[in-house]
Amino acid sequence: MAQTLQSVEKDFLNYVKKMAHLNEAIGVMYWDLRTGAPKKGATQRSEVIGTLAADVFAMSTSDEMKQYIDELSEPTHYATLSDITKKTLEEVKKEYERNAKIPPAEFKEYVILQSNAESIWEEAREKSDFSMFQPYLEKLVETNKRFIGYWGYEGNKYNTLLDMYEPGMTVDILDRTFKKLRDHIVPLLQKITTKQQPNQDFLFTKFPKEQQKDFSLHVLKEMGYDFEAGRLDETVHPFATGLSPGDVRVTTRYDEQDFRTAVFGTIHEGGHALYEQNISPKLIGTPLCTGASMGIHESQSLFWENMIGRHFGFWQNHYETLKSYSAGQFDAVSLEDFYKAINVVEPSLIRIEADELTYPLHVIVRYEIEKGLFNDEIEVKDLPRVWNEKMQEYLGITPPNDAQGVLQDVHWSGGSFGYFPSYALGYIYAAQLKNSMKRDLPNVDEAIANGQFELITKWLQENIHQYGMMKKPMELLQDVTGEGLNADHLIAYFENKYSAIYDVK
Amino acid sequence: MAQTLQSVEKDFLNYVKKMAHLNEAIGVMYWDLRTGAPKKGATQRSEVIGTLAADVFAMSTSDEMKQYIDELSEPTHYATLSDITKKTLEEVKKEYERNAKIPPAEFKEYVILQSNAESIWEEAREKSDFSMFQPYLEKLVETNKRFIGYWGYEGNKYNTLLDMYEPGMTVDILDRTFKKLRDHIVPLLQKITTKQQPNQDFLFTKFPKEQQKDFSLHVLKEMGYDFEAGRLDETVHPFATGLSPGDVRVTTRYDEQDFRTAVFGTIHEGGHALYEQNISPKLIGTPLCTGASMGIHESQSLFWENMIGRHFGFWQNHYETLKSYSAGQFDAVSLEDFYKAINVVEPSLIRIEADELTYPLHVIVRYEIEKGLFNDEIEVKDLPRVWNEKMQEYLGITPPNDAQGVLQDVHWSGGSFGYFPSYALGYIYAAQLKNSMKRDLPNVDEAIANGQFELITKWLQENIHQYGMMKKPMELLQDVTGEGLNADHLIAYFENKYSAIYDVK
Repeated sequence: MAQTLQSVEKDFLNYVKKMAHLNEAIGVMYWDLRTGAPKKGATQRSEVIGTLAADVFAMSTSDEMKQYIDELSEPTHYATLSDITKKTLEEVKKEYERNAKIPPAEFKEYVILQSNAESIWEEAREKSDFSMFQPYLEKLVETNKRFIGYWGYEGNKYNTLLDMYEPGMTVDILDRTFKKLRDHIVPLLQKITTKQQPNQDFLFTKFPKEQQKDFSLHVLKEMGYDFEAGRLDETVHPFATGLSPGDVRVTTRYDEQDFRTAVFGTIHEGGHALYEQNISPKLIGTPLCTGASMGIHESQSLFWENMIGRHFGFWQNHYETLKSYSAGQFDAVSLEDFYKAINVVEPSLIRIEADELTYPLHVIVRYEIEKGLFNDEIEVKDLPRVWNEKMQEYLGITPPNDAQGVLQDVHWSGGSFGYFPSYALGYIYAAQLKNSMKRDLPNVDEAIANGQFELITKWLQENIHQYGMMKKPMELLQDVTGEGLNADHLIAYFENKYSAIYDVK
Repeated sequence: MAQTLQSVEKDFLNYVKKMAHLNEAIGVMYWDLRTGAPKKGATQRSEVIGTLAADVFAMSTSDEMKQYIDELSEPTHYATLSDITKKTLEEVKKEYERNAKIPPAEFKEYVILQSNAESIWEEAREKSDFSMFQPYLEKLVETNKRFIGYWGYEGNKYNTLLDMYEPGMTVDILDRTFKKLRDHIVPLLQKITTKQQPNQDFLFTKFPKEQQKDFSLHVLKEMGYDFEAGRLDETVHPFATGLSPGDVRVTTRYDEQDFRTAVFGTIHEGGHALYEQNISPKLIGTPLCTGASMGIHESQSLFWENMIGRHFGFWQNHYETLKSYSAGQFDAVSLEDFYKAINVVEPSLIRIEADELTYPLHVIVRYEIEKGLFNDEIEVKDLPRVWNEKMQEYLGITPPNDAQGVLQDVHWSGGSFGYFPSYALGYIYAAQLKNSMKRDLPNVDEAIANGQFELITKWLQENIHQYGMMKKPMELLQDVTGEGLNADHLIAYFENKYSAIYDVK
């Protein structure tokens, strides 16, 4: 068969486009299931999603895919490819190699294990009984160790897992960075815990749902979220989903006794959504049409949620508006007191409820445990003890039970090891980006106080969003900030902000 | 390969299940596009739908499908199959043969023609210029004639087209039935047009949308529509979609100046939806998990819309409720006057706006034209004249332009010839079913007046719904009514109802 080089490239791009199409269909069904699909159809719908997901997996490991990879990787052929094709090839090759190295029978067994482990974890958490979950977690760790054997690793076994969520990230970098962060946060936190907490009572007064929604929509619009390319819906566990840059949906949850859930949640998901809406349309139909990594994605949501949404200037501009939407709960509260209340720092047990200063410590606990597990320094059976010791060491509190401790997160039950660090990386990246933004836009804080978000959105679009996965996270960071991962900016941000709020230094 | 018979049957059922799963995914995306998907993602989403639809088509005509058909049709093997597999085999075989007989190049050309013809039709209708559409319609008719040549036919070429929408239906049956219907409706209509029309002004007063919605939900619930297996949304062109029996969604449209659009529209789509919700779960994952035919489906929606929703007894029970939801527009209107107003009969130009008595005449006009086209008795170029003559003959009015005449329907532009008769068949079937229901449930009219719909829903479920496509339309009709297609019941219904309303005999 005398195919031209161009025609192989074209066929390959059509092949990956079909995979992207199947993933988009899965995305629509997933969104639908989470926002209002009738419950009696849910089991059947999950089967449909399973069928499509199996198709995508089969395509990613097919002989046809192997042939494309081999033909296009051939040096004289490779040289003729477009940049987008080259990056696409790199991604599918990475996935092909990851999947093809696992014997099919072992992979199948692992999928079943994941599914069973998730059900058992749910029950174990409910009963706060780690021993129920332990044998499953042992198998999950063991299987992932065996997979690392198949995949290979450089430097540290855990690097292979990190690389799945944050390409290029290593234990060396994280050890150095997280140590520095921890060494600054822990003493700062200790100082804060000696101080009197600001009054927060007024936060927990009834704020009608419809008004919360209207205020959330107002802020989303100001952020530059395009409602012709998205929509806001209600769900139990909020998320944003980028089906294509023309259809990026945000979901939120309303708690009438705590408006922060919806308002900060919507801003957070809105940050994810802006990223996906602003990816270059040239990447549609390729695996590159999403964020550069989990950490970079999280940097966008956290930038908006914290660096903007919890910024004093933001509330200088928005507090009166919030008051006008509320049922009067803030009438007797000054802007300063409101600002302090939404920035309270307090050690707590549950990661997803933590404030921005203590959050990274929750992540570091998990990182150290995962690293220990995959380097045979910690055994699964010891996790409850190790968890509680680290919580006491870093946060000064010990969980009263495993449900509020080692069993709180779903991640491990699905075999997602190496994912947690992304959350802390998101904070570090966000602070680095804010610093570079200030270099390029010296008046950025005034812009926030004046509600001129279009400057910020434009800067993020030009420097981050448009590239999708065309740049690796470290490359993106280097290009924008001129440096690699650096916790100094986050540390400076925390010290400035909280020394002012709590009058500590 | 020594496969057991059971394993071939199992593989075949998995193969068709995958097709059903792809169709369900398409259904979710279609519903989403029509109810609230962001417009900037619509083009991309249509491509995704196209990819999945192409997959389903490829599977229906694949070598693998051919092999299943051949192996399972082999008599000793066939004898071992379950009833569901036998019926499934029959359906996929019919489709395989239909698709496989068309040379691929011709099929591809036809798909392009359909797509172009639809765009041109839209423009032609807007400009009311039949000559623009004429060459496309000629090609569509010509291509379908050539396809009939490939497919073959029995008795009449048009039978092959009828069979696609209403299996077993023939020109002989329709000629006889439609003639009888026409011969009764036309003189009845002529008598009615000499009478004074009841007052309808109060119908067109503002009825707030939210209240229309609440009343529609109230009626849907009474009908037995299961909201845990469905939902009601808003759209431009209302429809019901059965994604699976556990997820059957209804959409409607609200016109604040004419509550009938939403109320009768919701009852109509609710009739379709009850059918799909009550199909036996055993048929999930097969092509049999839908209505027996277009006509039988329409019988369900029309039964609820007209035999119930426009029944005097229904309003005896619901008029006060409707009044309580409205903003007072019916306060000075008696039940009798309301009933007459919602049952006004008046010849009109547009099929989809026609009342129940004149509606079948609109269909008969189209039927006679289609039959003439495919038997070379009518030429496309003469359609505007023929259309207008028939409208004058049956309805006593002549369209002032082609937009309100021959160009009004989308069907022909998509190559859907043979579809229109289903609409009139729906009326005829509905009246036959009502008659049999009265035989089994002598107090059915009292039940309607008392709002005891569960009796009716249960009867429909037992006699119609549960079977899905396990029975052919004629078989279903015979089993339930003890007779074949018979317009007498519809004629009797019309004569009874309208002689009372208009005081004619």
